[in-house]
Amino acid sequence: MVFKKITLIGRSEESFDNAVDDAIDRAEETLNNVKWLEVDELGVEIAAVDTPEYQAEVTVAFELESPNA
Amino acid sequence: MVFKKITLIGRSEESFDNAVDDAIDRAEETLNNVKWLEVDELGVEIAAVDTPEYQAEVTVAFELESPNA
Amino acid sequence: MVFKKITLIGRSEESFDNAVDDAIDRAEETLNNVKWLEVDELGVEIAAVDTPEYQAEVTVAFELESPNA
Amino acid sequence: MVFKKITLIGRSEESFDNAVDDAIDRAEETLNNVKWLEVDELGVEIAAVDTPEYQAEVTVAFELESPNA
Amino acid sequence: MVFKKITLIGRSEESFDNAVDDAIDRAEETLNNVKWLEVDELGVEIAAVDTPEYQAEVTVAFELESPNA
Amino acid sequence: MVFKKITLIGRSEESFDNAVDDAIDRAEETLNNVKWLEVDELGVEIAAVDTPEYQAEVTVAFELESPNA
Amino acid sequence: MVFKKITLIGRSEESFDNAVDDAIDRAEETLNNVKWLEVDELGVEIAAVDTPEYQAEVTVAFELESPNA
Amino acid sequence: MVFKKITLIGRSEESFDNAVDDAIDRAEETLNNVKWLEVDELGVEIAAVDTPEYQAEVTVAFELESPNA
Amino acid sequence: MVFKKITLIGRSEESFDNAVDDAIDRAEETLNNVKWLEVDELGVEIAAVDTPEYQAEVTVAFELESPNA
Amino acid sequence: MVFKKITLIGRSEESFDNAVDDAIDRAEETLNNVKWLEVDELGVEIAAVDTPEYQAEVTVAFELESPNA
Amino acid sequence: MVFKKITLIGRSEESFDNAVDDAIDRAEETLNNVKWLEVDELGVEIAAVDTPEYQAEVTVAFELESPNA
Amino acid sequence: MVFKKITLIGRSEESFDNAVDDAIDRAEETLNNVKWLEVDELGVEIAAVDTPEYQAEVTVAFELESPNA
Repeated sequence: MVFKKITLIGRSEESFDNAVDDAIDRAEETLNNVKWLEVDELGVEIAAVDTPEYQAEVTVAFELESPNA
Repeated sequence: MVFKKITLIGRSEESFDNAVDDAIDRAEETLNNVKWLEVDELGVEIAAVDTPEYQAEVTVAFELESPNA
Repeated sequence: MVFKKITLIGRSEESFDNAVDDAIDRAEETLNNVKWLEVDELGVEIAAVDTPEYQAEVTVAFELESPNA
Repeated sequence: MVFKKITLIGRSEESFDNAVDDAIDRAEETLNNVKWLEVDELGVEIAAVDTPEYQAEVTVAFELESPNA
Repeated sequence: MVFKKITLIGRSEESFDNAVDDAIDRAEETLNNVKWLEVDELGVEIAAVDTPEYQAEVTVAFELESPNA
Repeated sequence: MVFKKITLIGRSEESFDNAVDDAIDRAEETLNNVKWLEVDELGVEIAAVDTPEYQAEVTVAFELESPNA
Repeated sequence: MVFKKITLIGRSEESFDNAVDDAIDRAEETLNNVKWLEVDELGVEIAAVDTPEYQAEVTVAFELESPNA
Repeated sequence: MVFKKITLIGRSEESFDNAVDDAIDRAEETLNNVKWLEVDELGVEIAAVDTPEYQAEVTVAFELESPNA
Repeated sequence: MVFKKITLIGRSEESFDNAVDDAIDRAEETLNNVKWLEVDELGVEIAAVDTPEYQAEVTVAFELESPNA
Repeated sequence: MVFKKITLIGRSEESFDNAVDDAIDRAEETLNNVKWLEVDELGVEIAAVDTPEYQAEVTVAFELESPNA
Repeated sequence: MVFKKITLIGRSEESFDNAVDDAIDRAEETLNNVKWLEVDELGVEIAAVDTPEYQAEVTVAFELESPNA
Repeated sequence: MVFKKITLIGRSEESFDNAVDDAIDRAEETLNNVKWLEVDELGVEIAAVDTPEYQAEVTVAFELESPNA
């Protein structure tokens, strides 16, 4: 029962907390057994968007259920 | 008058800011002369708790008052 | 059209998000073409201020307009 | 013929070597052309399990066979 | 609309630029909405190949379109 | 209920696994609520001892029970 | 006679070498006594431009001539 | 016989060497069996003191004598 | 009232302490409100000078007074 | 009486401990006064060998006896 | 059959690729069984030379043939 | 004309500056064309010696003269 980790970047116009929650939501929509996440980097995109966008790069760990890594 | 540093992990169901404040509160309950803190890592515990728990690992610096390191 | 990066430390008595916004505001007052920012470090100053002060060290990237690096 | 890397966490009640082997076994069940792996982190889970569990976070490199990254 | 990041190793007998382009090409064959890439490591494989092989480990960011992380 | 982290170096003439177990044993003798540990560094002392000594520097996390950080 | 360091991001549609040269050219247009540069990061912007753009973040060291840091 | 490590910040108006010695002195006043120390960071506090203060953050390793981590 | 950080390299034929002081002096000649500095790297230039030259790369933090980042 | 450090990669089909011991043995065959070693990286070679090969990159410190660095 | 690693800095007036090749050539002139190399750092020397010089610091791994580490 | 780098640890009972000078002296006794050195780590050995010993781990760069890497 190994764990696997993937890297997502959540995005929000509100706050870094929301950007992290955005990534959690996405992970839980498509993965079972999400265990924890680690915040790798925080940043703000300013020029390419209308409103500054808070971005949180996170690593999500989940338990692999059956042999499809 | 040397400083000492210790590492705590504050926890909150609300936000990373609260998790950091949680660690500050705990440090000030038991230590005099707390000077500053640095955030080392942010993470979210998901599987082992009912509600996702924001965690902030911080290093707290305080001034040693008398010879008991 | 090269980019340049500078390092600022935003400060707030409210939250880390506000400390980051503080740095964005300052950057946009004096620089054109701010592109994005990266959060380098988060910390809290406790002893030297009345109210704990959230600090966010950020690196701001902007586009240089004319030859004055 | 590019390589791809993924991150797994092997787990064992015996030893770190077994935890690494656990990750290798899982990788080879579902991937062809596994090339090598790098150990990123070693740790031990104590509180949430009956017996301390050795964990090895590893990065596995394998060769992509056809266009499905 | 979160981003996801994956790690590829492009390879070329010509140059590091070609090795990076090799990874870009592979990413674009199988992924929509590739945004940017970061070079993590450069190396040269010498013994296991006839001609020295330039290798570029890169992290590719792309936008997830629908719920399949 | 914050966690605290301390750094220990376990030592063994047998193996790195034993050196880590040595640190776990010591932590559990004097601390309640040990949660997990992370391996920071592995090394071998050769000159200052009769038999090479495997050393494992580990960070141990435990839950603080009452206000004495 | 202290040195100062600044961080630039050179950009090119051709290659990483050109992106670095782009930063050197810019530095020499506006600074006297450029001494050396270090490459901090290489990346490729793909989505926001017509042609993939090679980017090289570099730190440029130069000698300060008179008191205006 | 495990070792434990703690982090101190020695301070001096004279030099970095004195700041390190300051931390050694403090460690030896309250700890038996101090083994070695590693310098983690050097810095100078300028604004909050009359005379610039050299600061040396060090990690001190000592041998634990009896079960009180 | 944000802080800004710049990177200088102080130089001395005497010692690392003098090299750091050299950078402090230069910073204070041209900047108001210098707060602190961090030592990033120490090195010695040997070949390109008559006498070995101690070099200290430091990051200087100061308070920005008015809108000119 | 300065120390010198070199980097070796020990290899074993059995375990990481054996791979480290392999590097110690090699160091002691050709060097006097080996003092200690630090483990830099652990990995497993899978594709280029019949049996997975545990590899341990280590840095070995020894005392230089006479002027031949 | 352990591997050993050494660090070289290849130099070229043409490009980073040539600087790396320069280091490969030098390694193969004097070492048998060169296996691979890793690029550690890229930089450009500007002031001390007539033409900017591309420099590539690389770590070269080779197989030790007989007991002379 | 490639450069090579080696790692030495200079030692002194007086100061870190002396420990660095100790390593420079040793390097120049046995190597021609020493170019520069970088300080990697500073530490103090306390238990295994009569007087605390300042140690400076440095990387020394020199120019290779003829084909014997």
